[in-house]
Amino acid sequence: MSKKQIGIIGATGYTGSELVRLLVNHPEVEIAVITSEGRAGERFSDVHPFFTGIVDQPLVSSKEIDNYALDLVFLALPHGISMEFVKRFRDKPFKVVDLSGDFRLNSQAVYEEWYKTKHTYPEAIEKAVYGLPELYSDTIANAHLVANPGCFPTCSILAVAPLLKSNHITADTPIIIDAKTGVTGAGIKASAVNQFSNVNDNFKAYGLKTHRHAIEIEHVLNGLSDHNTTIQFTPHLLPVDRGILATTYIRMEGDHSEEELTRIYSDFYRDKPFVRVRNAAPTIKDVRGTNYCDIYVTYDTRTKNLIVISVIDNLVKGAAGQAVQNMNLLFGIDETTGLHQIPLNP
Amino acid sequence: MSKKQIGIIGATGYTGSELVRLLVNHPEVEIAVITSEGRAGERFSDVHPFFTGIVDQPLVSSKEIDNYALDLVFLALPHGISMEFVKRFRDKPFKVVDLSGDFRLNSQAVYEEWYKTKHTYPEAIEKAVYGLPELYSDTIANAHLVANPGCFPTCSILAVAPLLKSNHITADTPIIIDAKTGVTGAGIKASAVNQFSNVNDNFKAYGLKTHRHAIEIEHVLNGLSDHNTTIQFTPHLLPVDRGILATTYIRMEGDHSEEELTRIYSDFYRDKPFVRVRNAAPTIKDVRGTNYCDIYVTYDTRTKNLIVISVIDNLVKGAAGQAVQNMNLLFGIDETTGLHQIPLNP
Amino acid sequence: MSKKQIGIIGATGYTGSELVRLLVNHPEVEIAVITSEGRAGERFSDVHPFFTGIVDQPLVSSKEIDNYALDLVFLALPHGISMEFVKRFRDKPFKVVDLSGDFRLNSQAVYEEWYKTKHTYPEAIEKAVYGLPELYSDTIANAHLVANPGCFPTCSILAVAPLLKSNHITADTPIIIDAKTGVTGAGIKASAVNQFSNVNDNFKAYGLKTHRHAIEIEHVLNGLSDHNTTIQFTPHLLPVDRGILATTYIRMEGDHSEEELTRIYSDFYRDKPFVRVRNAAPTIKDVRGTNYCDIYVTYDTRTKNLIVISVIDNLVKGAAGQAVQNMNLLFGIDETTGLHQIPLNP
Amino acid sequence: MSKKQIGIIGATGYTGSELVRLLVNHPEVEIAVITSEGRAGERFSDVHPFFTGIVDQPLVSSKEIDNYALDLVFLALPHGISMEFVKRFRDKPFKVVDLSGDFRLNSQAVYEEWYKTKHTYPEAIEKAVYGLPELYSDTIANAHLVANPGCFPTCSILAVAPLLKSNHITADTPIIIDAKTGVTGAGIKASAVNQFSNVNDNFKAYGLKTHRHAIEIEHVLNGLSDHNTTIQFTPHLLPVDRGILATTYIRMEGDHSEEELTRIYSDFYRDKPFVRVRNAAPTIKDVRGTNYCDIYVTYDTRTKNLIVISVIDNLVKGAAGQAVQNMNLLFGIDETTGLHQIPLNP
Repeated sequence: MSKKQIGIIGATGYTGSELVRLLVNHPEVEIAVITSEGRAGERFSDVHPFFTGIVDQPLVSSKEIDNYALDLVFLALPHGISMEFVKRFRDKPFKVVDLSGDFRLNSQAVYEEWYKTKHTYPEAIEKAVYGLPELYSDTIANAHLVANPGCFPTCSILAVAPLLKSNHITADTPIIIDAKTGVTGAGIKASAVNQFSNVNDNFKAYGLKTHRHAIEIEHVLNGLSDHNTTIQFTPHLLPVDRGILATTYIRMEGDHSEEELTRIYSDFYRDKPFVRVRNAAPTIKDVRGTNYCDIYVTYDTRTKNLIVISVIDNLVKGAAGQAVQNMNLLFGIDETTGLHQIPLNP
Repeated sequence: MSKKQIGIIGATGYTGSELVRLLVNHPEVEIAVITSEGRAGERFSDVHPFFTGIVDQPLVSSKEIDNYALDLVFLALPHGISMEFVKRFRDKPFKVVDLSGDFRLNSQAVYEEWYKTKHTYPEAIEKAVYGLPELYSDTIANAHLVANPGCFPTCSILAVAPLLKSNHITADTPIIIDAKTGVTGAGIKASAVNQFSNVNDNFKAYGLKTHRHAIEIEHVLNGLSDHNTTIQFTPHLLPVDRGILATTYIRMEGDHSEEELTRIYSDFYRDKPFVRVRNAAPTIKDVRGTNYCDIYVTYDTRTKNLIVISVIDNLVKGAAGQAVQNMNLLFGIDETTGLHQIPLNP
Repeated sequence: MSKKQIGIIGATGYTGSELVRLLVNHPEVEIAVITSEGRAGERFSDVHPFFTGIVDQPLVSSKEIDNYALDLVFLALPHGISMEFVKRFRDKPFKVVDLSGDFRLNSQAVYEEWYKTKHTYPEAIEKAVYGLPELYSDTIANAHLVANPGCFPTCSILAVAPLLKSNHITADTPIIIDAKTGVTGAGIKASAVNQFSNVNDNFKAYGLKTHRHAIEIEHVLNGLSDHNTTIQFTPHLLPVDRGILATTYIRMEGDHSEEELTRIYSDFYRDKPFVRVRNAAPTIKDVRGTNYCDIYVTYDTRTKNLIVISVIDNLVKGAAGQAVQNMNLLFGIDETTGLHQIPLNP
Repeated sequence: MSKKQIGIIGATGYTGSELVRLLVNHPEVEIAVITSEGRAGERFSDVHPFFTGIVDQPLVSSKEIDNYALDLVFLALPHGISMEFVKRFRDKPFKVVDLSGDFRLNSQAVYEEWYKTKHTYPEAIEKAVYGLPELYSDTIANAHLVANPGCFPTCSILAVAPLLKSNHITADTPIIIDAKTGVTGAGIKASAVNQFSNVNDNFKAYGLKTHRHAIEIEHVLNGLSDHNTTIQFTPHLLPVDRGILATTYIRMEGDHSEEELTRIYSDFYRDKPFVRVRNAAPTIKDVRGTNYCDIYVTYDTRTKNLIVISVIDNLVKGAAGQAVQNMNLLFGIDETTGLHQIPLNP
């Protein structure tokens, strides 16, 4: 059987290079084309020299995409630009997995409020499917446009979803998500934010009360129950390259046991190959380079707080890996295909 | 005027070396003696080579301490051992600042429950004064034995105290302290916990529900109001040498404004030279090497959560610096004497 | 065709866990048994929790190894202990790849001088083949016992070998190898050497004039020409997990051009899939997690020094990856089988 | 006695903030004015928030400098711009310490070749004194314009000077300086070079054969003997904030002993308070935040190489600290005044 033909729109960022890393050894697909406007004509390995001798194919302008018979295209582009490509590709035969935030929220108004930018292709918002396979694998399989989730939302939603589905959370339940991310979450563009000496041996909170991923998390959680859920979401910047750890505090009603609550999570994720319900608190290096989300559940009888620790690699399960998982579902193949990387630890 | 004569019991750990770093340039004191049992006879700079040419005085056994006419002694020892020295020194003329946890809790029973060890000198528990100068400067000034606070408690208590004092917190107020610390908090002894490749590019939660500093924080907060306060305290390990950042979430009753709440903090710390109420979220490098505690207060009207970000250097305001501040109070000199270090950043 | 059956002796160290990482996805082999004396009975994933759900097989004592029909055994043990196992396994039908230093030097006397320990199985020294496939693939293919090279020697020898083979180096040529390594080179045992706060934001030279890898490098280089070669080898410790970068300075006789010298390297490594002769100085992250050795050659006409920059991942090309490459040669399969990992960067 | 009045031209970079860090607690001077063109009107602590409450004075344009009666001005500016200020200030009564490279080389032609820029004030080149106090304290004391040395040259020259002065080096002696620097050496401007994920857990060589500091080193070394000295200088980038370690290899003629060679260094630096000749290899954290240069000398009888390990803090002894040391000499006060910082370690 011939391999599926893949296009990657946007070669220069971290998600672009991670997609290539995962797809190069994927047994069912072939990277037919990688585009870049600014560096067309150069080789992919000129942009990312560690691919020398591995992926040396030339980058082309996205204008040449019609020269390729593609089955699926990944958009590894900034929000705002990504929606333009979704529009441009609206009559193409290939499926689209969009790694930006442009189609994750199902309301134009909410998007424009939190992203501070006009949505130029609102018609597609409703058609887009939120690509979190652990919750929506069936609808993903039949989608044409998949909105790949944000990194913080992936790590946060997977930490809360089982409780919502089991009706352990009411509209008034206080939920606090204290999240910590590696620097690659800020993208590849050099700035004071990701400068070594501002990050190394340092730590800070940022985006207090206003981070866009807060609304994405609430938006998805609200879809999982009959009532609204309000979360407090605070991101922090770790002096590490990759990885998110979210510490989620849920004030429970009534009495519970750790065993009972852990079982809810184990049952919920029983058939989900990328979620590992762990018996001790995981570290971010436990999942580095892989598509795993590791989750640990503990309950404090003294305070009645359930504490959930969840970790992912923000560039894999939080971006490129999940995108490949979605691609597998779209192609009707096993969702783990090409995603058998082992954590690089240390 | 002759300088005050100081003894440092315990030379080999981080707190020992930080005390020396701060006292060497202190204008009112002289380090008369530094002790070590295991390395007596060697020079201090043999143990900490970066002091070569600065502090080359020989280490002596603590048994020789009577050869020195001391005004004050710092105990830079592990808990359990420290109480033995307090006992041994009970009739000495010098004052004692104990940097261990042995006299921070004012109940033998609670100590023994959380420290899993017998208290061998309970008689001194009541006499010890908790050495957090921003709250107890008057009693510290008249103390004979000062229990220097833990690093997490210092950073946490300073983040909550103004609200308790202003009666904004009730017995039912949920308080969550999500704390992140550098590795030196685990001490200088080599172990898997502080091994480079377990920490570097990594991050984890630890001591969930059971960390000793939780009870120390509650214990002090309870003393600040008429009711009990329960906190959820979760420490995490950062890949940095020094620094603690605590993100504290307090679910407020009624309606509030950020300005009002910030003013409570500014007023509370107006005359406290080491607390800086900041107008933006601080980073841990903002206080590195110094005795500052930087605090930022923000209020989320959407969730009614007050969020307090507080940072300290765990080895300075969280240990040796605060000990020197306490020493200054005990000597009746300005509490900032010898503590004018500027943050080393980057 | 049934898969080759593999035993790994020594599960708890970094080389043990890297071997498992590489072999789990290797299409031609099966990990039949992993041994540990101290932790027999536990699961491999108890020792290395990031393998949870991936490799949960129980560890067994090496005494039980006869229960398995093995084709090849890796010894992931400290030197001194490894030789005991080689001796014990001398009549077994399986081949042995020894990752320790016990059989790398072909002289008992030299071994005992540099390793300060008696060699207890000198009979095997002559039979062991030095497992650097870029130089000795033919003899490796026919070996029974392969001595897997040290990490520094791998990185250093590959940087010098082409010049020796092309007779550009005489007995008097001064060669300086200034090498820098990540912390995992020191092994997994916690000590002051690999403690986070001694390494982080720090840098130092160590083992000046006395490092065992110096003699291993000279020993191999001497075998490549008719004369002896003396090198100055200085290792340094980097605050990184993995990676070695060696800067090699060779004072050339006569006049040369960078093009000419680069061509010597390109020609020498033309058919070597794991050596990439690069056109710019590589970084250690360019090869992280992979079996590549990247080499850059530059010539300074002002000083007549040839400068060679070479980088490897010390745990892969410097240990487990090279061991798997040797295994492939021993099995007569393509040497790249199972070694198609892409660099994890960042 | 009234304090000397100091101006700092250039507030936003690392050298600007380090100068302020060191001068704030200097007992003999007062920072009268700090300038910035881009951020005039803002407070110094707006630019460097860790100075909040410590240095809140407003930044002014350098055009207003005549409003201040200054004794000395530091130029903390990029090369190329700095020379313009030297020119502009040529008739001012104050002395000038220039931290850029504009007046370090005493030849316009050489400057223009290595800096690839025209020198616009060549008249001052001859008058400038090279501000390395360990070699030139007398001429510095009488200078009007001091060219503060580069960071690599400081660390490298101090490692070689004693041997040149003692005639142990001839024109043909091969000298290799393999230097490793922290990221702050690249300045505060965000770029791919100093981006966290390009530096963290990474290491590389750069500026091979072409780094400007190579010519500065040769230029100064040549002035110390009757013959020319050629060096091979290779910088590398460490994943650390601060610190330079240089490993210098000198191929000695004749036979030597380590004791003899160490004594040459000890004698040479006997009265130099900031050079510590150590008896073991120093680490960069041994001098962090201080004006020390630590030097270790070892001799390999096998190879006849003298190996010198030297470390400095590039922002202190390599920039702002040395500038303050020069200021002290210019003011005729003890050169250690205000420079008694203790290493921050860890």
